[in-house]
Amino acid sequence: MQSVSSANLARSYTKLPKNKTLLAGFQGEPGAFSQSATRKLLGDNIATRPFPSFREVFEALAVAQIAHAIIPIENTLHGSVLENYDHILEYGFPIIGETSIRISHQLIAMPGITFNRIRRVYSHPVALSQCRNFFEANPQITAESYYDTAGSVKMLRNELPSDAAAIASADAAKIYEGRILRRNIEDDPANFTRFFLLAKQIAKSSPRTGAKISVTFCAPNKPGALFRAMSCLALRDLNIIKIESRPLLGKPWEYRFYVDFMGSMQDATVQNALANLGEMTQSCSILGNYTPTP
Amino acid sequence: MQSVSSANLARSYTKLPKNKTLLAGFQGEPGAFSQSATRKLLGDNIATRPFPSFREVFEALAVAQIAHAIIPIENTLHGSVLENYDHILEYGFPIIGETSIRISHQLIAMPGITFNRIRRVYSHPVALSQCRNFFEANPQITAESYYDTAGSVKMLRNELPSDAAAIASADAAKIYEGRILRRNIEDDPANFTRFFLLAKQIAKSSPRTGAKISVTFCAPNKPGALFRAMSCLALRDLNIIKIESRPLLGKPWEYRFYVDFMGSMQDATVQNALANLGEMTQSCSILGNYTPTP
Repeated sequence: MQSVSSANLARSYTKLPKNKTLLAGFQGEPGAFSQSATRKLLGDNIATRPFPSFREVFEALAVAQIAHAIIPIENTLHGSVLENYDHILEYGFPIIGETSIRISHQLIAMPGITFNRIRRVYSHPVALSQCRNFFEANPQITAESYYDTAGSVKMLRNELPSDAAAIASADAAKIYEGRILRRNIEDDPANFTRFFLLAKQIAKSSPRTGAKISVTFCAPNKPGALFRAMSCLALRDLNIIKIESRPLLGKPWEYRFYVDFMGSMQDATVQNALANLGEMTQSCSILGNYTPTP
Repeated sequence: MQSVSSANLARSYTKLPKNKTLLAGFQGEPGAFSQSATRKLLGDNIATRPFPSFREVFEALAVAQIAHAIIPIENTLHGSVLENYDHILEYGFPIIGETSIRISHQLIAMPGITFNRIRRVYSHPVALSQCRNFFEANPQITAESYYDTAGSVKMLRNELPSDAAAIASADAAKIYEGRILRRNIEDDPANFTRFFLLAKQIAKSSPRTGAKISVTFCAPNKPGALFRAMSCLALRDLNIIKIESRPLLGKPWEYRFYVDFMGSMQDATVQNALANLGEMTQSCSILGNYTPTP
């Protein structure tokens, strides 16, 4: 994270590193959707390491135990992952990449278990709630909450219950040698999660470019302050993709904003817009300039 | 909730009803902070009814089992209560009042239990995490998660453990006849929660006025759309207090916005601003015009 008042503007990767000796960390069990996002961002050969919590992922990056962190930032059904906005600010690691993953839920059982024998299905409560139609169509099956989607398949692998299945990703089925009995059982197919790729710092060799920029700032507590901040981008035809707000600790009813817009730090208009934004706001920082991986 | 294209603009209460025969519903056990907010909004004599979940509060209002619903919408440490933004949109109940409550955590034990005997303290995980300094200063005491703050005091009342206390509101101590052993043990005193008062519909006798207006709209998916929407208010010097966004289901990466600004529906400038906002946005609705209770 760099202040816009700094002359040394944020750099970014145009081509993401595909080095398999570097370790990438994510939250969840192996087979989590974050692991799929990691592969999409860094290639199939990247070595990954799962962590129990988002904070532990950030801590691992802070002590260079991992070279990259992959964190979910937003889901099209649930909204922003607010905890990760707070961590990005606290740790100040630059965003060097972005991708989104279609969240498709698979009904997974261990080999030999047929659909007719299933009476219980385990998964994370959010995943269970996204498959209501499946449970309504199969009243003989009860939904059982579990702490993690991929973790529920891991549990089947270890305990081998004769009447249970799990809901998780196709990757989780592969990793724990489960069989997919029903594909894509989610109610709403417009279910995507957007992930950020973070590094501890920007490599010096990286070019200063990218298609998208994330910034954060506090608007002064006076009428029109946020509008003036947004005008720095809008009046230059820079396309604001997303705006998120988080409370400012110690200042009740004041907010920090997070704005994503399309642009490259190499572009003079963007440089002017950011200088203008730094002038109109407080604690304005560039979180990253990166090119989304489609 | 009313469309701004409707000629019949939202009404609001200038004076809130203080009728003790009307039932007000909130989420949590008796003694919850929502109950304190209810008293602040509707007076000490209002009859209240607790519900296990926010959805059940909205459902009770829908079937007229309660006359008012009191729901938290925002906390100065944690941010918006996103679930309630979604419920307000789904149910369309008008916002007729607003207040905020200072969240102060009290260490509560049953009579006869002295501080020196306490080894376990129960509360909701969020409350426990807001009292870290207390637990660091008292390493002989472990924090134990419970589903509700006031509920943890209720549990002490029923089970009478000899070495346990709870963290909850001063109201919870009174209701369950507990004693406050340590006052205001929260780490951060700038801890406030903002509540909305909802009715099933606006009383016909209510005047069309209030100091604050909440609106919701979808910005078209094109560059500058949110900026243009905000300009309808900002260029008329209407002070935007808060902006929140929620994902639009079925339309990945598009958003619905919720904006609070200072103004009265009786003011011609506000009426023009809302007409202009209806023109610049999609599905624009007025959620309420209300006067905050200080």
